[in-house]
Amino acid sequence: MEDTSAGVIERVVQRTGGKIVLLVADGLGGLPHPETGLTELETAETPNLDRLADEGVTGLHVPIAPGITPGSGPAHMGLFGYDPVRYEIGRGVLEALGIDFDLREGDVAIRVNFATVDEEGNVVDRRAGRIPTEKCAELASKLDTIDVEGAEVLVRPVKEHRAVIVLRGEGFDGGLDDTDPQATGVPPLPLRPEGPGQERTAAALETFLERARPVLASEPRANAILMRGIAARGRIPTFEERFGLRAAAIAEYPMYRGVAGLVGMTVLPPAESTEALVRALADAYADFDFFFLHFKKTDSTGEDGDFDRKVEATARFDTVVPGVLSVEPEVLLVTGDHSTPSALASHSWHPVPVVLRAKTARRDAAKRFGEAECLRGGLGIVRSVDLMPIMLAHALRLAKFGA
Amino acid sequence: MEDTSAGVIERVVQRTGGKIVLLVADGLGGLPHPETGLTELETAETPNLDRLADEGVTGLHVPIAPGITPGSGPAHMGLFGYDPVRYEIGRGVLEALGIDFDLREGDVAIRVNFATVDEEGNVVDRRAGRIPTEKCAELASKLDTIDVEGAEVLVRPVKEHRAVIVLRGEGFDGGLDDTDPQATGVPPLPLRPEGPGQERTAAALETFLERARPVLASEPRANAILMRGIAARGRIPTFEERFGLRAAAIAEYPMYRGVAGLVGMTVLPPAESTEALVRALADAYADFDFFFLHFKKTDSTGEDGDFDRKVEATARFDTVVPGVLSVEPEVLLVTGDHSTPSALASHSWHPVPVVLRAKTARRDAAKRFGEAECLRGGLGIVRSVDLMPIMLAHALRLAKFGA
Repeated sequence: MEDTSAGVIERVVQRTGGKIVLLVADGLGGLPHPETGLTELETAETPNLDRLADEGVTGLHVPIAPGITPGSGPAHMGLFGYDPVRYEIGRGVLEALGIDFDLREGDVAIRVNFATVDEEGNVVDRRAGRIPTEKCAELASKLDTIDVEGAEVLVRPVKEHRAVIVLRGEGFDGGLDDTDPQATGVPPLPLRPEGPGQERTAAALETFLERARPVLASEPRANAILMRGIAARGRIPTFEERFGLRAAAIAEYPMYRGVAGLVGMTVLPPAESTEALVRALADAYADFDFFFLHFKKTDSTGEDGDFDRKVEATARFDTVVPGVLSVEPEVLLVTGDHSTPSALASHSWHPVPVVLRAKTARRDAAKRFGEAECLRGGLGIVRSVDLMPIMLAHALRLAKFGA
Repeated sequence: MEDTSAGVIERVVQRTGGKIVLLVADGLGGLPHPETGLTELETAETPNLDRLADEGVTGLHVPIAPGITPGSGPAHMGLFGYDPVRYEIGRGVLEALGIDFDLREGDVAIRVNFATVDEEGNVVDRRAGRIPTEKCAELASKLDTIDVEGAEVLVRPVKEHRAVIVLRGEGFDGGLDDTDPQATGVPPLPLRPEGPGQERTAAALETFLERARPVLASEPRANAILMRGIAARGRIPTFEERFGLRAAAIAEYPMYRGVAGLVGMTVLPPAESTEALVRALADAYADFDFFFLHFKKTDSTGEDGDFDRKVEATARFDTVVPGVLSVEPEVLLVTGDHSTPSALASHSWHPVPVVLRAKTARRDAAKRFGEAECLRGGLGIVRSVDLMPIMLAHALRLAKFGA
């Protein structure tokens, strides 16, 4: 699973060359409709993507490894050229990114469930009866005022019974096991630190929990806290360090902005329509070398299991292409982060169609943009982490390896 | 980046089986002509290669990793079945091989620039005004007489201001940083050894430089030496050790002969025409199991950016095939070491067409030998290091792995 070009790419990256646009339709890949034998993408009217496929080079990418279904975090890390297993993003970190929290290097982020415990301290309801989000916000704001020596503890609501705690300070480690027992009738699990960093983390969290107890004591339902996915925001080499690129991200949803921010992209304000997306690209075009543009609807309609609406979303996505081409990037790569077949109503492991357009691209026999047609493509089936070197190469941003 | 079959191939290699010819057209792959949509190879008349494609199995290979453009050294190491990153050949070593220098294991080879320094010792011209090659030869031959205790120092001219120094003796290491400051107005950088082997190397080179100073003092331009690419010729398992093959190389250009020699091939005298190439193969055929034949013109015409002349060179290459087939090798594999599209006038990262002919080969749908057609091939897109196991297998030279 190591990046194929690991150890090589750093040595050949140049800071000169063309501009690159990576246009991502979340969950793009699909499965055939039983009646037509065509996937959502193959069913949709996509004249602009088809022209790209005809004129450019196509293929498919495997997000993590064959058969592995990725979450959105690892899927995007792969697209960004970071081995998603080596640069694994902890659950707590993803949850914090998902609420647009400005996580700093070294912060430890924790997913939190408000829960109900009885007088013996045994869990009665792991989700505190799904308290309303307003209640969650009220409690989070109270807990946020708690002080712990040597640490800043930040508490933010997410939704219903879910919240995020961020521990900020010197020398805290993540990786501790959850305190959520995943069962009722038993007490929350204790924190079990290993090593000095985790001990510091556990001590700070225990102090926090102790001081949270009186705050929550009078709550009929949300009278306890369960912790999950305790994770540090590790050091990730930035896009600029790794690829010599000044990169910008334009995405509507916090999670994608968050992952882009993790790799050091400048996160531009969210574009709330496809027109706004293209305008934002044009406005920022002079200031960056690389643009990550994210389109969400292809995934959410797939997750809903709605074939027809995914077809519509895909056709809508297609209309973005001319606007993106109008800035004349040297390299345009269009793909998804993973497949989300409406037949499965979930992410899947199926390879994702890719099309790359550049003057330096070798053409292939693919005439339309679709799963079956991309199998005829000149890129073959590659892993997602290989797409960054391929984009950089076509933008003439990589020097020769060896003489 | 590891060879897919590393750790396996050694265990299944047998010393029996058929003979193999690896016929390499340097820089074979290309990019489409904007008017015709056909690459150089697809444009050229290649009836013999087309017949191979029709009757054999085709595919493409990626020289190093997706997007990575290889130099000729690493590209050939890959074709020879050696991971080009693990078995990286230093610049100094390649330079020495390029002038047909008989480098031995443990030798440290250094690329040298003659340069001009002022009275303060600051570099004025990093290339000594590109002195004529004759001047370079005269200076190299003077410097070659310098003695250094515990070392043999060999100095050879390359071209204009470029020369090679080889340090021969016990316990010398390469890998020291260049003394070339890559700038003028500053003195050459000092040697900064790390570890005992490098310290011995630095001490010997410093003594040499000290004794070279009076030799060059009266030179108006070439009065200093800058060192680059200080590299040891490491231990590389030979073709015979690794693959059980007695191998021979027939190549016109020194660099390719050099790399073949590095992996222990017997380097036959250069053939200066395609007819001579075929004759040399026939003459040596009884004595070896494996033959590497190298054809250069497809690369040099591509490097010149001359589409039409690359087409001509490719057609010329095609005429070699019947002669090669006349010796009736059990396996013939024809490919390039990398692509050199005339549109880029340089090496590139694009996958390289491969055709393999053997009685043991499974046929595929490809009818002609070209980039697009080979995408239909039965070998798929493989990495260059995988071609050796594929050749060995088709020659029935690999035993079963496991029972």
